[in-house]
Amino acid sequence: VRYASSRTVTLIPGDGIGPEISAAVQKIFASAQVPIEWESVDVTPVRGPDGKFGIPQSAIDSVNTHKIGLKGPLMTPIGKGHRSLNLALRKEFNLYANVRPCRSIEGYETLYKDVDVVTIRENTEGEYSGIEHEIVPGVVQSIKLITEPASQRVADYAFEYAKLNGRKKVTAVHKANIMRMSDGLFLRCCREAAKKHPEIKFEEKYLDTVCLTMVQEPSKYDVLVMPNLYGDILSDLCAGLIGGLGLTPSGNIGLGGAIFESVHGTAPDIAGKDLANPTALLLSAVMMLRHMDLGQHALKIEQACLATIRDGKVLTGDLGGKAKCSEFTNAIIKRIESS
Amino acid sequence: VRYASSRTVTLIPGDGIGPEISAAVQKIFASAQVPIEWESVDVTPVRGPDGKFGIPQSAIDSVNTHKIGLKGPLMTPIGKGHRSLNLALRKEFNLYANVRPCRSIEGYETLYKDVDVVTIRENTEGEYSGIEHEIVPGVVQSIKLITEPASQRVADYAFEYAKLNGRKKVTAVHKANIMRMSDGLFLRCCREAAKKHPEIKFEEKYLDTVCLTMVQEPSKYDVLVMPNLYGDILSDLCAGLIGGLGLTPSGNIGLGGAIFESVHGTAPDIAGKDLANPTALLLSAVMMLRHMDLGQHALKIEQACLATIRDGKVLTGDLGGKAKCSEFTNAIIKRIESS
Ligand SMILES: CC(C)[C@H](C(=O)O)[C@@H](O)C(=O)O
Ligand SMILES: CC(C)[C@H](C(=O)O)[C@@H](O)C(=O)O
Repeated sequence: VRYASSRTVTLIPGDGIGPEISAAVQKIFASAQVPIEWESVDVTPVRGPDGKFGIPQSAIDSVNTHKIGLKGPLMTPIGKGHRSLNLALRKEFNLYANVRPCRSIEGYETLYKDVDVVTIRENTEGEYSGIEHEIVPGVVQSIKLITEPASQRVADYAFEYAKLNGRKKVTAVHKANIMRMSDGLFLRCCREAAKKHPEIKFEEKYLDTVCLTMVQEPSKYDVLVMPNLYGDILSDLCAGLIGGLGLTPSGNIGLGGAIFESVHGTAPDIAGKDLANPTALLLSAVMMLRHMDLGQHALKIEQACLATIRDGKVLTGDLGGKAKCSEFTNAIIKRIESS
Repeated sequence: VRYASSRTVTLIPGDGIGPEISAAVQKIFASAQVPIEWESVDVTPVRGPDGKFGIPQSAIDSVNTHKIGLKGPLMTPIGKGHRSLNLALRKEFNLYANVRPCRSIEGYETLYKDVDVVTIRENTEGEYSGIEHEIVPGVVQSIKLITEPASQRVADYAFEYAKLNGRKKVTAVHKANIMRMSDGLFLRCCREAAKKHPEIKFEEKYLDTVCLTMVQEPSKYDVLVMPNLYGDILSDLCAGLIGGLGLTPSGNIGLGGAIFESVHGTAPDIAGKDLANPTALLLSAVMMLRHMDLGQHALKIEQACLATIRDGKVLTGDLGGKAKCSEFTNAIIKRIESS
């Protein structure tokens, strides 16, 4: 899936540490002379003519025009009935595949050395359908909705992603032993997609088995594709293996565009103090560049970022260092400029 | 929850390696002079008077009479429409709480040293309701059913378990940010249960966050309580941290009885070869003894089993040794007899 790439990118700086890490990314992009323009938008919900709160039209227009966005962390508005803004964006732009690569980062030590997996999550339906009823008091049902078109497109995307990125295997993760019809349908779509890509190995595994073996031998896995909630869980588990959400990029691929985002929180306690780590947003921006066919720039920035972490001299607090966000950013820029 | 303990236990040896590991447990129990009798039953589905396949009445009667069972692994019958026998048993006896303790085992090295958690899983409803529909071709819904009574009883059980076992904290694991009504109801029941047990710390966490932090710092957790599917996932994840399903016990606590079981597979490849590891079933039997207020016997057997693994001289293949099942069993018996 590729879009006519107008070279303007919608930037949603987000809340909390969002603006500082967004500024860091912009600075790094400028130093790498990435040929894009930024259009900054605010997505704080506003009351529309119908009296309901929603994402401002200007933000929607921007993404619809440019078809590509980069997004910092967003606060979930407080108060009953407010749904997560992250979810609203996924829905608004039909961002059907959530792609989260997790690779061990040299220089940031965890218990695991050889993690290199990509979770691809169906991002629009499943357990996130939002359909719930109280049948009688004390009896609630939530509906997990699985459709063939949504399952097909994410399964196809997983194989196309694998092919494009030189990956060898796709694992479909499911509980079709329990949810025979819904996960069964998802699984059948994966099998169909697999048939179209005989060059990519295909396997099917139960979610519980994947969780168990992922913490024992993550190198068993490569690309994994799964329904919405399973992806939520497994992508966080994998992020945990390599150091957490501060280090892992994420991309939401849609029909009408694609939004790349860091999936960590807004960290209000350190917001505005020049202490945040921009790595997750930067690596998300790197994914975005690859998606825009700007692979050279992507590689240059990615290498500078990873080399700075590997080097270990200028690191933010969460990485075990004492550097400010701006110092870490400048260390990356120095490497870009001298490369 | 305690039952009038007739001291006869229903034994479901199970399939594959089931009979050999069951025999090992019986031998060890005999050596420890555990004051129980075994009543062995077969649960292979038989065709009833109505033409449908089901668990044999004699097996059902045995559990209903003795109120306590020990169960080896069961094969899932092959062929469309056959539901898992494990699930059938949970349903038949209303086994509402599935308890799986995971503790690092000295002598069996993994990446983690300080795992000591207990997952308590709602075992009768949730995503396992079995209610699914194809609305129109290619559109399937599965229903996650959460009820107040089932949520209350498992939440209460979690706190009672914590209290009885000297545990300090219960974490309710949920996705009420997404499934506001169903997980919301579950969460409210946990809060209510927490109020009745002010001596136990209570916290609420998102499932994805728990997965992420569990692989980084499992010692943050103690007892965890959650809806059915989340428990399926998290208990396997935790088992992975300490070495897998061959080492982790499980108990299903019900209204009409309790069944303790190893949750690993039937291992047909090594069945009948005296190569299986009986640890998971033995530790499940130890849980059973504690449940029957036979704590002294439980402790003696548990210590002999753990000491044999710690010692490292007589271990089965899966534990890195060369011993047969019978040799490992005899090594445990020797410790019991000399203790
Ligand atoms: C913020 C929350 C709604 C979201 C989710 O559950 O999908 C988050 O956990 C994620 O993984 O993006
Ligand atoms: C065998 C299967 C039906 C079962 C489940 O999904 O509950 C298993 O994974 C378990 O954890 O007991």
